[in-house]
Amino acid sequence: MEPLSLLEPRESFLRVEKVRRAMSDAGFDALLACDFATIYYLAGRVFDGFALISVADDPVWFVKRPVHLGGELVCHIRKPEEIPGWLERFGVAAPSRLGLEMDLCSYSLVERLKSVFPAAECVNASGALRAARSVKTDEELAKVRLSGAKHVGVYSRIPSLYTTGMTDYELQIAIEYLSRKEGCLGQFRISGSSMELFMGNVISGESADAPSPYDFAMGGKGMDPSLPVGASGEEIRPGCTVMVDVNGNFTGYMTDMTRVYSLGTLPKLALDAHQCSIDIHREFRRLAVPGASAKALYEMAEGMARERGFEKYFMGHTQHAGFVGHGVGIEINEQPVIAPRSRDILEAGNVVALEPKFVIPGVGAVGIENTYIIGAAGAECATDAPEEIISLD
Amino acid sequence: MEPLSLLEPRESFLRVEKVRRAMSDAGFDALLACDFATIYYLAGRVFDGFALISVADDPVWFVKRPVHLGGELVCHIRKPEEIPGWLERFGVAAPSRLGLEMDLCSYSLVERLKSVFPAAECVNASGALRAARSVKTDEELAKVRLSGAKHVGVYSRIPSLYTTGMTDYELQIAIEYLSRKEGCLGQFRISGSSMELFMGNVISGESADAPSPYDFAMGGKGMDPSLPVGASGEEIRPGCTVMVDVNGNFTGYMTDMTRVYSLGTLPKLALDAHQCSIDIHREFRRLAVPGASAKALYEMAEGMARERGFEKYFMGHTQHAGFVGHGVGIEINEQPVIAPRSRDILEAGNVVALEPKFVIPGVGAVGIENTYIIGAAGAECATDAPEEIISLD
Repeated sequence: MEPLSLLEPRESFLRVEKVRRAMSDAGFDALLACDFATIYYLAGRVFDGFALISVADDPVWFVKRPVHLGGELVCHIRKPEEIPGWLERFGVAAPSRLGLEMDLCSYSLVERLKSVFPAAECVNASGALRAARSVKTDEELAKVRLSGAKHVGVYSRIPSLYTTGMTDYELQIAIEYLSRKEGCLGQFRISGSSMELFMGNVISGESADAPSPYDFAMGGKGMDPSLPVGASGEEIRPGCTVMVDVNGNFTGYMTDMTRVYSLGTLPKLALDAHQCSIDIHREFRRLAVPGASAKALYEMAEGMARERGFEKYFMGHTQHAGFVGHGVGIEINEQPVIAPRSRDILEAGNVVALEPKFVIPGVGAVGIENTYIIGAAGAECATDAPEEIISLD
Repeated sequence: MEPLSLLEPRESFLRVEKVRRAMSDAGFDALLACDFATIYYLAGRVFDGFALISVADDPVWFVKRPVHLGGELVCHIRKPEEIPGWLERFGVAAPSRLGLEMDLCSYSLVERLKSVFPAAECVNASGALRAARSVKTDEELAKVRLSGAKHVGVYSRIPSLYTTGMTDYELQIAIEYLSRKEGCLGQFRISGSSMELFMGNVISGESADAPSPYDFAMGGKGMDPSLPVGASGEEIRPGCTVMVDVNGNFTGYMTDMTRVYSLGTLPKLALDAHQCSIDIHREFRRLAVPGASAKALYEMAEGMARERGFEKYFMGHTQHAGFVGHGVGIEINEQPVIAPRSRDILEAGNVVALEPKFVIPGVGAVGIENTYIIGAAGAECATDAPEEIISLD
């Protein structure tokens, strides 16, 4: 038997306490979680089963798979109907208001869990979990920093991968292979079902303006209608940009990073819009302190784009994305969200990917994305690397 | 505007009719679907939104993203609350028994959709959709065959990728890169939330016996506790096997294929168990005709393993998987399921991946996996390639 939790006791306690505080704020006394990302957050590893966090008792772990995990308050079950019996045996109080991950678990599963706890009032725990996870612990931030350093290392070698006549797809898969060689885990974890992506996007020329079915800033046309995202297989042409936005998951925690490469000479419009993105980042670094409003940060970015006359290219051209930044961590779409109607207020320990981008018709996408760790002393950039457009010539 | 459906009218009609028949069998008169795989099935492309299939009227399409899709009975919406108004405008009857994808959609979404149709009785459509999709059309089978041919092409070149001293991880990412060069789309679509995987598994030696949190036949230890699946980074050692089970999604439709490679000499136990797998396949090809029971096919496989004394290695050693085969198509876990308690009966047009595998402690995994198209004239192998263990020496 291997101990179930891979977290040090202190780290485990920190995370559970954070969840308990969010539970208290939301008014429920127990949480039964099973989403893989939540389980990884709570146990430092993925297992198939449930974690029961209650305000009054120690966490109890219910494992379906794998078979080799053990420890205190760890029990192996085949189905959730076995949970109440175990709680009784452990002397853990039955939940009265039970939080379930209703934004993530299927309707069928939630209905089943509700009937496992007929005496409990079941409520949606997804908001509380998102809030708890949006403020990272030092250990989580260390993983973000490590991913960022490796991510930057991969990007620094992208120009060396380009050869004349390459398509965006060929460049994309060369970057994927380099990333994997450097230890990228590949998996791009997305909460919920608003997006699909393989490993990342390399978008060149007109493909940048292909309207995406997914909730990305810009997705690219893709190689097949079954997965309309990413490179489209077109040759990278002079006068066009290549936007690289690929997976930075090297540690279980992701950084999100975009840089722009180019062939030949770009029109002034593209260069100026790219500079606008860099300037938005500079302003963000100044303003993104604990207590700052995510809505105000969005308005700053959108306002700068409008002031310089780039509003029709901002966050897309044929189709516009409704945000300019998002929380990132175990998953790519965490809190806070930097969007027009966001009510999020930045806190120390938030990790935010800011991606003010522009689509210039006939040229491609410009603008950069960095991942920032919000701290009392200001925003720390986890993906620090040259920001200007990098020539592939 | 681009036409929403990429399917020819006849193909579109075939699929919708198949879904309507399953709906009638299950007793509901309309289906509101939004899962990306279902949308791709119905429209030949992915979009974010809803498809309404009713028994009496033509399909109606509700698109949130992308913005550029149009056509008859296509409407752009921001939220599902707009759907009833559109139905009224189109003169489409309001659903009375409405099928929703309750095994896939979140509890929150289903509750929201229920309140959009307060007069309808909402029922679970997941089973009916699984049944409809389990029998493929000729066009779908053509995509399966094409994926299979490309999949086989990649596997034929695996020995050329191996170099002395390689780790399983190095081999895995070399195979990934080769697959991507040959046009593999990467995305490994899984229905529901029982599995996570990047692109495929290369499992060597002891890693084969690492109990997996996921519902795979065998998963491998992985490189990080955040994604405990696939290669573990150990050097491939003489006397060990390397099992390669990587993504065959080249067309939106997947084939599933496993072959075994080896270094040095393998013990007789491993060779005999591998032969048992080949023999199970031979028997399957004989028995897997329309009308055959999936349960009986499982019992045949399990029985052959037991007869030869391999039961403790069958479908895992420290942990055993509960099936020996599964339907495959747009997703990796479709119907029919070849498992002890399966009630599925094979039909012409089913696509089944059969994977009788054995974990031999200290050696690794053996056994092959093929994808079969079930037809009146017998099972056609979409992944036809040498079945014996292939030496990397």
